[in-house]
Amino acid sequence: MNGAETLVKTLLASGIDTCFANPGTSEMHFVTALDAHPELRCILCLFEGGASGAADGYYRMSGKVAATLLHLAPGFGNAFANLHNARKAQSGVFNIMGEHASYHLQYESPLKGDTAGISQAISHWTRTSETAATVAADGAAAITAARANGGQIATLILPANTAWEDAVAPAVAAPPAALRRPSANQIAAAIRALRLPGAALMIDGTALHGELATLAARIAKAAGCPLIQPCLVARMARGAGAARRTRMAYRIEENLPLMADISNLVLCGAARPAGFFAYPGMPSLPESPDCRITELCTPTMDYAWTLRALVDALNAPHLTSDDLYPLHLPEIPHGPITLDAIGQTIAALMPAGTIVVDEAISSSAPIFAATTHARAHDWLCVTGGAIGYGLPNAVGAAVACPNRKVLALQGDGSAMYTLQSLWTMARERLDTTIIIFANKGYQILHYELAAMGAPKPGRNAAHMFDIIDPTLDWTALAHGHGVPATRVTDMTGFAAAFDAAMGERGPRLIEVVC
Amino acid sequence: MNGAETLVKTLLASGIDTCFANPGTSEMHFVTALDAHPELRCILCLFEGGASGAADGYYRMSGKVAATLLHLAPGFGNAFANLHNARKAQSGVFNIMGEHASYHLQYESPLKGDTAGISQAISHWTRTSETAATVAADGAAAITAARANGGQIATLILPANTAWEDAVAPAVAAPPAALRRPSANQIAAAIRALRLPGAALMIDGTALHGELATLAARIAKAAGCPLIQPCLVARMARGAGAARRTRMAYRIEENLPLMADISNLVLCGAARPAGFFAYPGMPSLPESPDCRITELCTPTMDYAWTLRALVDALNAPHLTSDDLYPLHLPEIPHGPITLDAIGQTIAALMPAGTIVVDEAISSSAPIFAATTHARAHDWLCVTGGAIGYGLPNAVGAAVACPNRKVLALQGDGSAMYTLQSLWTMARERLDTTIIIFANKGYQILHYELAAMGAPKPGRNAAHMFDIIDPTLDWTALAHGHGVPATRVTDMTGFAAAFDAAMGERGPRLIEVVC
Repeated sequence: MNGAETLVKTLLASGIDTCFANPGTSEMHFVTALDAHPELRCILCLFEGGASGAADGYYRMSGKVAATLLHLAPGFGNAFANLHNARKAQSGVFNIMGEHASYHLQYESPLKGDTAGISQAISHWTRTSETAATVAADGAAAITAARANGGQIATLILPANTAWEDAVAPAVAAPPAALRRPSANQIAAAIRALRLPGAALMIDGTALHGELATLAARIAKAAGCPLIQPCLVARMARGAGAARRTRMAYRIEENLPLMADISNLVLCGAARPAGFFAYPGMPSLPESPDCRITELCTPTMDYAWTLRALVDALNAPHLTSDDLYPLHLPEIPHGPITLDAIGQTIAALMPAGTIVVDEAISSSAPIFAATTHARAHDWLCVTGGAIGYGLPNAVGAAVACPNRKVLALQGDGSAMYTLQSLWTMARERLDTTIIIFANKGYQILHYELAAMGAPKPGRNAAHMFDIIDPTLDWTALAHGHGVPATRVTDMTGFAAAFDAAMGERGPRLIEVVC
Repeated sequence: MNGAETLVKTLLASGIDTCFANPGTSEMHFVTALDAHPELRCILCLFEGGASGAADGYYRMSGKVAATLLHLAPGFGNAFANLHNARKAQSGVFNIMGEHASYHLQYESPLKGDTAGISQAISHWTRTSETAATVAADGAAAITAARANGGQIATLILPANTAWEDAVAPAVAAPPAALRRPSANQIAAAIRALRLPGAALMIDGTALHGELATLAARIAKAAGCPLIQPCLVARMARGAGAARRTRMAYRIEENLPLMADISNLVLCGAARPAGFFAYPGMPSLPESPDCRITELCTPTMDYAWTLRALVDALNAPHLTSDDLYPLHLPEIPHGPITLDAIGQTIAALMPAGTIVVDEAISSSAPIFAATTHARAHDWLCVTGGAIGYGLPNAVGAAVACPNRKVLALQGDGSAMYTLQSLWTMARERLDTTIIIFANKGYQILHYELAAMGAPKPGRNAAHMFDIIDPTLDWTALAHGHGVPATRVTDMTGFAAAFDAAMGERGPRLIEVVC
């Protein structure tokens, strides 16, 4: 048994059964080992950013770590941006980065690069295997690290000779260390803060969906305080039956009034809110300067335990239907394309359980608002602000949840970053519907420029924001990747295309000219 | 004048007039400053790997440093793979990496990342501007660094507030430090080595084109020894009128016999040759173990001076027509598609001065062989082995040389990495012809697997090499980006499409089904 075989067996023995891969020569023995283990599902991505983004989406929807297979430092570089989003989403990802045979590294071969350096710039955990004999234990340690602290980026650098040389046996990943918990005094202090006037409870992460979301809402109800979440979150339950809460806005000038009356902010599993960017003359922080902040539980602590402790300490009441969003499906609008009308159509037609992957950027807010009372669904955001997250995350979400519809809302500028993921959707027959908001550019930058206090863009500057001359043809791009596509120019056309997409399985793309 | 304005003026005052950009919010003030300076040509790339690869191709063909504009750590990550190729090509590149305002970095905003860490994993020089007042001097220092040691990667991290706050004046980049030169004793020792039996002269870099290529050939002629170059080089002059020399192969098993009779290898501006990868049971180095290596001049030393010193010391004769490749244009073949026939057609039809950007990978060797006696042309390679270099490099080469035809030879798997560059070709009306060798996969990996001594791939492994189910439709992909395209299935069709492409200006793509 060679090192690569022990690694594949270690993955399987440790409960990892999915690998998003873009292999090269240094990963050949790992790929060969897959032939003996079809139970490890290996999914080809035509660009490494597709692999890392898919592992992120997979974790967000399954809570399970997937492996990625990346080719030396440049391949890891291609994966970097979506590892950044995964890190900010607290997704556990196990990267296997191929490397030259250790004895070959003394020479200046073309692909030699700083594998450890680039890994350390984004990974929580990095290790280079020294020998084939240690590969299994190194892999197990990496898996443990990926599962630690609520989800981390763990990278194992695998010199080719450690993959092909003889090894002994696979290993099994140990469970990660127990998460830290707040003390009884800290719980008591947080409860006192929550009961003060101007209190608010801020949550994030796993408290935005499932059982923990219910616990968080019960705590806020017991304390009689608002329940707030950040704008860009890994995953949030929404629509009918979801607990009511307030989402912060992207724009700092909208968050300032939202936070103005909050004088006691309790952070529970959430980082301190900060502006997405700094702008001249604007504060970095949305809360008022005299707001008192109580940090009960950082995102890497034992969030579930903390929420249950708060529920118990408060003897928090159960939720009633008044605490939940009711189902309210709008009429399907006709007429010219508007973002509000698209949101209403989506709300009317998307099935229960839909996973919405939102990278619509400047087109997002109206769709988000219009789907508040849609059927129950999950909503995923670009947590790290690195565009190109949407299509890869949709791949991972669809692999994690094969029986749920995945709906990717995509700005055209951001979709272009990782459009190769369309091909993986076609190959794997993933049940993904992609809506491209073809507004012909990085429209958000026009807002950002104004927010920066800069003058209206002249010809040169506007040329850097607008994807015109030529315009992109998204139906052709989709067809090129093997994905059926339609272009729509009015709401009747959109409703027909979207209804058809919801009624069938498999990938399809709708280009909305707006 | 704000910091961004001083930086734009510093670029122009220092002779940099081209910027390949994918800007975001943190780069807004730089973009705005462009409005006042249309003489700085700013070219939009829809993915940062397109920007870094274009800067690489631009340097290879012009010898001039271009700037890139990248958006924080994830944007730099996207640029990383082609910066790796640029580094291996010894291309000078000046990266401007936007960063959060320095006072905003204390908070955990979504895009906060390890900007310095990822830069240091690939850049020779990294600096973060501390204040607006230092931006101009920092930019000038970065430009000097990019031009130092024969071409380097220099990265300036620009916190947003240093761009928008008041600054004083632009700066001008100082010339880089003088390059090191070998001693008279080293020159004499190299000449003795070159005159020994079994001697060979190995060259690279700027000695592969232009005046220095002539000097190198004169030295080898005077010494009566073979003239050898590495396989993957930044740029080499080829075709009629180019000096004869031997190119090493990609495969180590072809290089072993090539080097078997060489017992005295003199390295002049070339790194010690090493296998692209290590393979079980194969040596890392191509030369015989008792080959003596004399390193006269590293790639970062004064190459031009060294070559002239050798010519003078040897009193090297001028070249005659026997030392140069003659023009010999083949007939245009018909019949089924073969790589040999495609090479012959290219040789027959491509105009003098064509720049061939070769990322055909497994399809490359026959085209290379068939064009040996074509009209004079330059040939560029994937120096760092990081695929996705071709289309971006073609953009940069076409911007550098607007009056020359650029011919990109692309494997389909590698073209998929950075296909967004097609759009930039369309927007900038670049005179690029792209040939896609649609062999439906990473065919090189089938060779690599065998070279690794691994068994024939089973279904799972082959599924990771073959881009089938679905196949990519390259004419649709090109149309989607605004580039006219044709698919050809026989040699008559290829000759017609290629002849038309050579006769017109502007981008076009030919998909060769093979």
